[in-house]
Amino acid sequence: MNRSGILFTDLYQLTMAQVYFKMGIHETPAQFDHFYRSNPDYGKHQAGYTITAGLSWLLDWMDRTRVEPDDIDYLRTVDGGSGRPLFDADFLDWFVGQSFDGITMEAIPEGRVTHPNVPLTVVRGPLAMAQILETSLLNHLNYQTLIATKASRVRLAGRGRPVLEFGLRRGPDIGAYPGARAALIGGADFTSIVSLSAQVGLPPKGTHAHSLVQVFLAEGGTELDAFRAYAQVYPDDCLLLVDTIDTLDSGVPNAITVFEELRAAGHQPVGIRLDSGDLAYLAIQAAKQLDEAGFGDVLIVLSSNLDELAIWQIVSQIEDEAPSYGVDPQRLIGRLVYGVGTRLITSRGYSALDGVYKLVALRRDGRWEPILKLSESAAKVPNPGSKQVWRLYDRRGTATADVLGVAGEVIEPGQTVTLHHPVDPTQFRTLPEGAISEVEKLLVPVRREGTNLIDGGDLETLRARRDGDLARLDPGVKRLINPHVYHVSLTDRLWQMKVDLVERLMGE
Amino acid sequence: MNRSGILFTDLYQLTMAQVYFKMGIHETPAQFDHFYRSNPDYGKHQAGYTITAGLSWLLDWMDRTRVEPDDIDYLRTVDGGSGRPLFDADFLDWFVGQSFDGITMEAIPEGRVTHPNVPLTVVRGPLAMAQILETSLLNHLNYQTLIATKASRVRLAGRGRPVLEFGLRRGPDIGAYPGARAALIGGADFTSIVSLSAQVGLPPKGTHAHSLVQVFLAEGGTELDAFRAYAQVYPDDCLLLVDTIDTLDSGVPNAITVFEELRAAGHQPVGIRLDSGDLAYLAIQAAKQLDEAGFGDVLIVLSSNLDELAIWQIVSQIEDEAPSYGVDPQRLIGRLVYGVGTRLITSRGYSALDGVYKLVALRRDGRWEPILKLSESAAKVPNPGSKQVWRLYDRRGTATADVLGVAGEVIEPGQTVTLHHPVDPTQFRTLPEGAISEVEKLLVPVRREGTNLIDGGDLETLRARRDGDLARLDPGVKRLINPHVYHVSLTDRLWQMKVDLVERLMGE
Repeated sequence: MNRSGILFTDLYQLTMAQVYFKMGIHETPAQFDHFYRSNPDYGKHQAGYTITAGLSWLLDWMDRTRVEPDDIDYLRTVDGGSGRPLFDADFLDWFVGQSFDGITMEAIPEGRVTHPNVPLTVVRGPLAMAQILETSLLNHLNYQTLIATKASRVRLAGRGRPVLEFGLRRGPDIGAYPGARAALIGGADFTSIVSLSAQVGLPPKGTHAHSLVQVFLAEGGTELDAFRAYAQVYPDDCLLLVDTIDTLDSGVPNAITVFEELRAAGHQPVGIRLDSGDLAYLAIQAAKQLDEAGFGDVLIVLSSNLDELAIWQIVSQIEDEAPSYGVDPQRLIGRLVYGVGTRLITSRGYSALDGVYKLVALRRDGRWEPILKLSESAAKVPNPGSKQVWRLYDRRGTATADVLGVAGEVIEPGQTVTLHHPVDPTQFRTLPEGAISEVEKLLVPVRREGTNLIDGGDLETLRARRDGDLARLDPGVKRLINPHVYHVSLTDRLWQMKVDLVERLMGE
Repeated sequence: MNRSGILFTDLYQLTMAQVYFKMGIHETPAQFDHFYRSNPDYGKHQAGYTITAGLSWLLDWMDRTRVEPDDIDYLRTVDGGSGRPLFDADFLDWFVGQSFDGITMEAIPEGRVTHPNVPLTVVRGPLAMAQILETSLLNHLNYQTLIATKASRVRLAGRGRPVLEFGLRRGPDIGAYPGARAALIGGADFTSIVSLSAQVGLPPKGTHAHSLVQVFLAEGGTELDAFRAYAQVYPDDCLLLVDTIDTLDSGVPNAITVFEELRAAGHQPVGIRLDSGDLAYLAIQAAKQLDEAGFGDVLIVLSSNLDELAIWQIVSQIEDEAPSYGVDPQRLIGRLVYGVGTRLITSRGYSALDGVYKLVALRRDGRWEPILKLSESAAKVPNPGSKQVWRLYDRRGTATADVLGVAGEVIEPGQTVTLHHPVDPTQFRTLPEGAISEVEKLLVPVRREGTNLIDGGDLETLRARRDGDLARLDPGVKRLINPHVYHVSLTDRLWQMKVDLVERLMGE
């Protein structure tokens, strides 16, 4: 059995499917919306947006996943509490060979800036298979979006300097593989994972470990011997880890010696890596030594428990402290590279995006009927029915709101629009004529009739999309701490539909 | 190329291996110790121990992983900064066909209680392949041990009542699969993941979602219709989610109606699930209604953002509040089942175990030379050389300390032992003659000459081991908050060796 095939799901998806089958409604067209409710809140700091990721790998999974005979062989053996089989032969006979070919999907493509309560994925298809899709869809999209978001923040903190993803050893087992891929979409430039680099078409990156220096010491040699050996093998890729013995008294001077030898032989040294201690202070002092030796252009790679706050602090400290040592802070910041591991691949501080997948409509008698679940908190009431999502840009070209409306509605640049707070009836605002310079539909068709409509594998496209969205996002929303809340609103028509539906259900 | 084969590693392992190859020391026998430095600290609460997991899956990976020709084909294409290939033909010619057959491993088996700074895995083998093993070893063991530990705490909080792992949808993509497996070792009884259940030989578990009820409502029916339909398909596995409309006014009464119908037809209903609201209060009120209807024995499954603190709070509140409603708190607690999702599979609050893999010895001229890396903090100085680890039990049979000694040393019950704090020279204690009732070696051989020596797949064995260790652990160490610190100590001989080595290196 394929461990990550159709049975990489929660049991209850299959038991519910059997109920639908027995009731004869398993083929009834249904719509599920996927969205999340809150931006990641890492405790001391909170995100103002997310970056979508995972969709193209989900689509690949949907393409290659069918209910196989050996899946059925296993399900036949699953007993209920009484010792009788949980699944009946008639259901399994129908189930074998089923696929996601009947599913139609719209989605916000990977690499886009997104916000809470906006449908990221809209799934329509036969009730049973659309329900079964839930677990895999959430499994692919929740984690990858979480990591892409963290990577975006890390990149912002580093002011766009290169970010290297190094988290495999403390990542979530094989989940580090899709996690690193999401990091590459959201903000990392390269990863150390060799097999993933091969898959996405990037060169893998890395330096060396302390153990390399230790081996030479144990063999009776010195740190300089270790650096020389490394430089001899990699004369054009010489990036040396300088903190095994003492960063400023041993590591950097030895690196400079080797760099001089490389330069004399016609090679260009790449840089040094600092992996412990006060990274800002050490970067300043290392830069000073390197500058004085004429290596003003080699990189300084920082690593050791980095995340967006640590990087922000390092950059700020360099701006404060570097001038007193005669080092130009902006030049130094401009030669830094960040190696980010554990805290990126695990989204330290906020371990899971709260994405959900909610039934919002069923097709009955030829039309889509909106469905609404009344739970105790108004914020949790999903927006019913079939929807469209627009992003509105203001006169400056900055994204000013994401708006959910009823399918078929039209919003055009220039027109007056009333935007309702999704929950609070007293909060609404009207954008005057001319306030909107551009209206963009966010959901695009991604799958129809068993065919994936987008090719999402190209990292360059995804990154360009990400950079485009971030450039049009208000700086306040991008703040690492206490971000401005981006508006997600409902149109008049959707608001009214929700109110009517709640009143009807309350009345019943 | 196999994505999770030999190239599921950090690039620098391969570039270092090439340096060792070029120096002719790639086959030099080396020893690496794997250990972690701190127990998980979830912010508001901290673990006093960990539960090991991941080893048998690591051993399987080592068994099936070899350097394949298509791995080499890829590595041949990896260019360095100059545009020249990073790897030379002579290295690749040696590398192809390499495996972990030359690696000898001792380890603390899965399912055991373990502590910081104790070697969990000791690896000996040719330098290059032992170095390359690092990434995969840490990737397998860090995450699985993290999740097994969290699951153990959840189980303790629930006082041994069943724990169901439900985290797939918000877990780390495909990493949720090994994560759920670790949860099953550490404290979860069952998982909802169908394919994993098949692999480990457990029945998968689940109930149904809110969408089942919503579908019936949308079709013009009622919650009662939905429950009846479910009961008709699963008369002997009827576990009903009762909070879609209103838990106490609708869900529980409707469940009771269906349970009465099932009972009349000769079936035994299984239970209800509460998924929102004040779970302690709702459990009390639901129990009261169920008791009054003669269903004092059906289960009450709780879910919704549970972790060890949430469960602890629920149990405490039930003990306080149940008597005032005429409900016996202990009987109620004894019918609870916990469905635990996101916070278990992601170890909410502490996202990664800080396991490391350190070079501690090299074999030169026929003997093992200890190696020590001097970094700035004393706590980070690894214990050098080849070691043995014992667990000492006191007169009551309770584990009192894990002791690291030099290989070849002997500790026996009854003898006097002096235990040194691993870092602070002023802290030591001497256990008098007769204080130790039992001495247990923790490291056992797990791999030699390309053969795995243990079969770690049997969950029952692992769980028995876990329960045995927890029964012999001081209750203070198991506290969910502010646990007593378990002693990890060095013998006189290891302490002296470390001091000598530090002095020698400082002198140089």
